[in-house]
Parts: sequence; structure tokens; C-alpha cells
Amino acid sequence: MLALRLIERKRNGGRLEAGEWRALALAYAKGHVPDYQMAALLMACYLKGLDHGETVALTEAMLRTGETLDTSSLDRPAIDKHSIGGVGDKVSIVLAPLVAAAGLAVPMMSGRGLGHTGGTLDKLESIPGFRTDLSLVEARKQLEEIHCVLIGQTSEIAPVDKKLYALRGATATVDSIPLIAASIMSKKLAEGLDGLVLDLKLGSGAFVQTLDDAMTLGKVMIELGHDHQCPTVALITAMDRPLGRACGNALEVEEAIQSLAGEGPADLMEVTYALGVEMLMLGGFSGGRGEARATLEKLIRTGAAAEHFKRIIKAQGGDPRVVDDPGLLPQAKAVEIYAAPRRGFVAGVEPRAIGKAIIDMGGGRSQMEDPVDPSVGLVITAKPGDWVEAGEPLGTIFAADRGGIEVARHTLGKAIRISDEAEPPLPLISHRISRDGVEQLTSD
Amino acid sequence: MLALRLIERKRNGGRLEAGEWRALALAYAKGHVPDYQMAALLMACYLKGLDHGETVALTEAMLRTGETLDTSSLDRPAIDKHSIGGVGDKVSIVLAPLVAAAGLAVPMMSGRGLGHTGGTLDKLESIPGFRTDLSLVEARKQLEEIHCVLIGQTSEIAPVDKKLYALRGATATVDSIPLIAASIMSKKLAEGLDGLVLDLKLGSGAFVQTLDDAMTLGKVMIELGHDHQCPTVALITAMDRPLGRACGNALEVEEAIQSLAGEGPADLMEVTYALGVEMLMLGGFSGGRGEARATLEKLIRTGAAAEHFKRIIKAQGGDPRVVDDPGLLPQAKAVEIYAAPRRGFVAGVEPRAIGKAIIDMGGGRSQMEDPVDPSVGLVITAKPGDWVEAGEPLGTIFAADRGGIEVARHTLGKAIRISDEAEPPLPLISHRISRDGVEQLTSD
Repeated sequence: MLALRLIERKRNGGRLEAGEWRALALAYAKGHVPDYQMAALLMACYLKGLDHGETVALTEAMLRTGETLDTSSLDRPAIDKHSIGGVGDKVSIVLAPLVAAAGLAVPMMSGRGLGHTGGTLDKLESIPGFRTDLSLVEARKQLEEIHCVLIGQTSEIAPVDKKLYALRGATATVDSIPLIAASIMSKKLAEGLDGLVLDLKLGSGAFVQTLDDAMTLGKVMIELGHDHQCPTVALITAMDRPLGRACGNALEVEEAIQSLAGEGPADLMEVTYALGVEMLMLGGFSGGRGEARATLEKLIRTGAAAEHFKRIIKAQGGDPRVVDDPGLLPQAKAVEIYAAPRRGFVAGVEPRAIGKAIIDMGGGRSQMEDPVDPSVGLVITAKPGDWVEAGEPLGTIFAADRGGIEVARHTLGKAIRISDEAEPPLPLISHRISRDGVEQLTSD
Repeated sequence: MLALRLIERKRNGGRLEAGEWRALALAYAKGHVPDYQMAALLMACYLKGLDHGETVALTEAMLRTGETLDTSSLDRPAIDKHSIGGVGDKVSIVLAPLVAAAGLAVPMMSGRGLGHTGGTLDKLESIPGFRTDLSLVEARKQLEEIHCVLIGQTSEIAPVDKKLYALRGATATVDSIPLIAASIMSKKLAEGLDGLVLDLKLGSGAFVQTLDDAMTLGKVMIELGHDHQCPTVALITAMDRPLGRACGNALEVEEAIQSLAGEGPADLMEVTYALGVEMLMLGGFSGGRGEARATLEKLIRTGAAAEHFKRIIKAQGGDPRVVDDPGLLPQAKAVEIYAAPRRGFVAGVEPRAIGKAIIDMGGGRSQMEDPVDPSVGLVITAKPGDWVEAGEPLGTIFAADRGGIEVARHTLGKAIRISDEAEPPLPLISHRISRDGVEQLTSD
């Protein structure tokens, strides 16, 4: 009866009080409110919106239905980075060991592949033996010992968010800014953070496709962070093309390892450093931003960041030898070069199509239960703006079999547009958003 | 996956094609589309609306998931009346035997109490032994033999509508004009009708509370009827006060029996005759409207209508002696007069409060499974506009016990407003809507 009145009020454009969000979240967690009532409410929220107070209350309500990580006893600030999701986005795997090596604690909770985007958990699990299902007790112990843990959303963390997230996927209520913000922040705030950096992906391959939406989402999350004593900063970065070259689970881990070894693609490193600098600054880095960047570059150059990744892998049950020998990662059975069908400028590399092709090749999920083949994917070396000759290699296809090769070939034929004119891509890092306002950046 | 795309499109304000409504209805009937997806779609439909083509398609889709009554072999036109629901609305119980006696076939499928409104099925079942759960085969046989059958929505008729109806109740998506229209018409069209008269209740006690909404709903249903070769006409009648005097299941049957015996309250008889005339005209009555009315009045006067009701009761397993001796109906254990607390004009008799009081007294349902005590209710003799002295009886309370008396007394104290000034009630029958347009009537 409670739920019915709340649905009715939201349907009529009204607002729910903090206590009502809390009661609703608890009742839903306990199964006292059925999925169909929550689905109707979600659609009403999608279409009528939540105001700032409601978004705060929903975040709080989801946060409080579960446990939180107690980071109060750590000897260093706990800072995390969260990306809204993209294609080829392996930043976390480079960044987490890097900033941990720089002296931060990084309690990073990631997700699995969603829609056309990959997920850090799926990527990490391509490392033989790597466990992402640590309990909060295990995670805290590892944080104390090696200052970084890379895990999934445990059943202890915001269980209502987990349930709602699945329901939103099935009811076309995913891309609502307040619902996205509350979902992400309820999980991130459960990490007991002292600061959070958001990577707001923008462009055809992102969930957010307009600058306005990205700004709004960023501002809402920054406010939510602030309301919970978690200073939050956001960068808007390009997702109109894949980030880096590799797309696919093991391939992305391999590229992350190359990046930790100082051989990463320029765009990936640029985004990683920019986010890393923000993390260090939030963590109270004593020098300026230039110094922070130099610190990070040095940790890559000396191999300290790569060494830290080995310690993380080992602590989570994985085989740390992959860092020195990426050949130990799952290898695709069928490999083939993809060559340019004509000469011209690379006018675009469509990330959404590429993400979907990887799912079709078996490297992602159509349904939550689907198994994932970690070995498959694409390495696309061509970047928007490049001039290419007919027959010149644009990338490499890694597939399980001939069928996978054909799927990828077909997709790449459409996803990589070659034209007589170059088209300007989005700037790699376009804006920085903080509580102080929006700063336009000149990168790329 | 189909459902998800359809939810998304409706959420974005798009329209679903006829084939999509049909596929969705079938999939939902078979349980292939879960309630939570349908709930999200219903909310999107509620907030974004359905256009006329979609309403037609949804009606058709629900109609086709079930069986229909084959009335083609009847020797007379099959005409029904449907009311949108009100308090004290026992018109069907008078009207069905009356127009059947006048030569029409009446395959009347009714509902149970919903929210604050009563339901014809619940009322009829207060007659000892009366069965409303006839199969379509039984219903057709009875129609052939005595030209009238009073039943519930069998599981054969529009099963998707039945499932959706329950879901709408639980998801705050009831009062959507296209959803109401499609739901009613999918059931009515399954009766194999040659004509349909709608009683559109308007006012504080009705589901529709503005004249505009009543007109829109009427027009949509008239078009739906037309599209299915079922000429449809609507009257807008007042539901800002109860119709007749009795409210409560057995009490309303008793009042219907009095009405069939020529002793009905004036407002109830007026609405009954007006709807009856429309039914006769749709059925091809050879004379004019005045003559049709005279025919109906005569069938009451001669007792032919009452006699027909006996035949219906007997055919459906009930005790026909109740028509001559209403004392055989369930009798309330506690009876008490309700007197005017002050002198003045009766300024209003609020039907919604009265309907809710009857539920609280045990005479209606809060949940579908609740048992109903047929004996309880109220007989309110005061009508808006009457002058009353302090202490003058305004009605009688029929309850199961002292608690029920108190509930009713408390409600009546608020529901019957006595004031120094009379307030004009809504006209009893204000408009007639047909395909030719809207005609304003001067009644009351």
C-alpha cells in the first residue's frame, strides 16, 4: 500500500521524502515490494525526474541497505576513480596500481560488461586465477597491506542498487541521470572514500551522448559526493572512438600491462595521467599538478607501477607472471589482419559497433548468465584523422573461430569509416568539473 | 528483448504498431513477458498516452487473446449496458431483466467491487445460490432460452485484460483513459454485441471527475465500438451523490427488486429508463423514443420485468422467491437510524466516503481475496437539496455489529453535509454522446 501511494505521487510529478525513499529501499530489499511495483516507479522516475534532494535521499537509502568499507584506520587517503563505461577503457587497470604506488589507497569496486561496454571485472578475470569476489573483510586487509584492491560489488554493498540495476536493464529505465548518479554514488560512497574522480565518457560510444547531459550528470554526482564528505571531481573524456587500441578482455589487460611498462598508446596514457593527477590532488599531494604528473610518469618509467600490479594480482590469487609474459593470458585461436578497403582519411571508428561485435564474437554478454571468452577482441591501430592507403593494416582480429573473424570483419567494414575528408574527433579530455565550476580544457 | 524495445519506444513518446500490441498481449498471456516489464510499459503508456490507432490495436489484441460469445444464432439483437462504476449503482439489476422482457438479448458481463465502487457480481451473489461463474457455453444456452445472462468475466474472455487489470491496480496505472477504454471494450466486444450503451459516471464518486475526461472516454469507446461493428452510445450521469437510496450488496438487490415492482427511487428509475431507451433504439425498436420509454414503463407496471428477473435467478441457480420476499436476502445483525445532527439543506452526499465506509464495514474488499459480508450497507434517504430538521432520519445503517454502526455513523457525519444554503448537484443525466456528436440534455 505504501508503494502504491508513492508510485502515484511520482507519476503525478510529486516528490518522495527522504524517509519514504529509505522505507521503499528497505521494503524492496526484503522483497516486500514486488518488482512490478518498483518497475512502475522506475518508469515514473525516468519520465518525471528526481530533484536533487530526492537523488541524495535515494543514494543514501541504497547505501544504507548494505555494508560499507571502513577505511578509517588506513594510513593514507582512500581515493577511487569511476568511469561511466566505454569501449577499450582499460584505464582502471593501469591507474589503480599506478596511484597506489604513488601513495594512495585505492579500494576500487568495478562492474562487468554492460550493453556494448566492457567491464573491468571481466577484463581482470582473464588473468589466470584472479579473484574479484573478495569479501569486505578480505578487501580491507589487502588495502592495509598493499593499498589497492580490485573487486566487484559484493552482496554486502548496496544490495538494493544491485537489484534495481538489473531491473532497470529489463525495463528501459537505465539512462536516467538521477538514477545513474544514485546508483554509481551509492556504490562508490560505500567504499569509504576520501575522494573520487569521475571519468565521464562522452560520445556515440558512451551512455551519455550530449555535453549537457555529461555536465548535468557530473554536477549531480559531485554534489552527492560533497553531501557525503567525499570530494569529487570529474573529467569529460572522448568516447566517440575506442580508448587505446585493444578492445576485448585479455587484449585490454595486455595493453594495460604494456602501458604500465611505459609502452601504452598516447590517448590511453593521457587519460590515465589526467585522472591520476586528479586523484593525487584529492589525496592531498603536496606539490603542484605538474609535479603530480611527473611523479606518475616516473612510477611508470621505473617499473614501480608494474611491480605494484604484480603484488595486486598475487594478493588476489592470480598469476603475477602475466605482467612479464602476457603470453600467459588466454590466446585467441583465430587471428587475422584487417586491412583498409580503400585509401583516405579514417573519418571515424564507431565504438558502439565494435563493442557489440565483441559480444557477438563471444567476448561479452547478451544476458547476465552468458559465459565470456576472454581471448577474443580487436586491436585497432587506426585512429580518426589518420591517412591510410588501401590494403594497409588497420587492426587485428582475435577470434575463437572463422565465424568470429567474419563477424569482426563485417563490423569493422562499417565501424571504421574511411573518407576523402578527415572529420574532427571530440577532444580527448574536454572539461574538468568540480564544485568550483566547469573548466574547459585544451587537450588533443 | 521484444518487450524492452517496445517499452523504450513508448517511454520516448513513440507508438506501437498493431502487430506489436498483438505480439505483446500474446507473450504476456503466456508469461513470456514478466509483470515488471509490463508494469514499466503501463506507466509509460499512462504518462505518454496511446493514440486512437494504438487504443484500437490494444483492445483488439486483448479481445483476441480470449474467446468470444457467439451471438450470431440468436433471434434478437444482443445489446448490453456498461457503467464506469459508481456508488449505489444497481441499474444493471433492474435494466437487464427489463430490456430482456422488452425483446432484447442481454449478455451482461459485470465486475466485482473496485476501490470505493460496488460491483454487480457481488450484489447478485447476495441472492442465495446465485451463480455468476457460468461458462460461455452455459451463458449462450441461457441467452437462447431466456434472453438474458448476468455473469462475470470468465477466464475464457480477454484473459490478458484480466491480468493487466490486476497489475494496473498495483502500479497506479488505473485511471488512464485509453487503458480504461481498451479494458472495458475488449470485454464488451467479446460479448458479441449488436449495440452497447455506456453509462459514464461523472463526479466526485466516479473514476472520471471532469466533464472533459468523461467526454473523451466516451468518444474513444464509441469509436472502438464502431470499429468493431458494435454501435455504441453513451450517457453522462451524475455520481456526485449515490444513485438511488441503497448502498451495499443485498440492500441494493432489494432496491432493484422494489424498482422492478414499480417502487424504485425516482433518480434510479430515470437513469434506468434513459439507458433502456437507448438500448431499445440500438436494438432496432420500431417506434420512437417516447414509445420505447412507455414500453419499458409498462413492463415494470405489469410485473413482466420482475417476472423476467425471477427466470434469470432460477436459471443461474438462485432462489427466485427473493423477488417476492426480499426478506430471504442476507439480513444485517445491527440496524440503526441515522438522524440529522442539525437543521438545514442537505448540501452534499459524498459517494466516495460512503463507498469506503461500506468496505470498512465488511461489505467490500480492500484486497481481491477479502470475503464480503453482503448484508451490510447504508440506505440514505436524504438527497442533495432536501431541507431537513435536526433529529430527522437521513438514513439507516445496516451493520454486522456495533463497530460497523460506529464506522458508518462517523462516515455519515462527514459524508452528508448539511448547510444553510443548498448547493446545486450535477444534473442527473447531462449529455448523450454518439458518433453524431454530443447532445446536451436537460434532466433533473
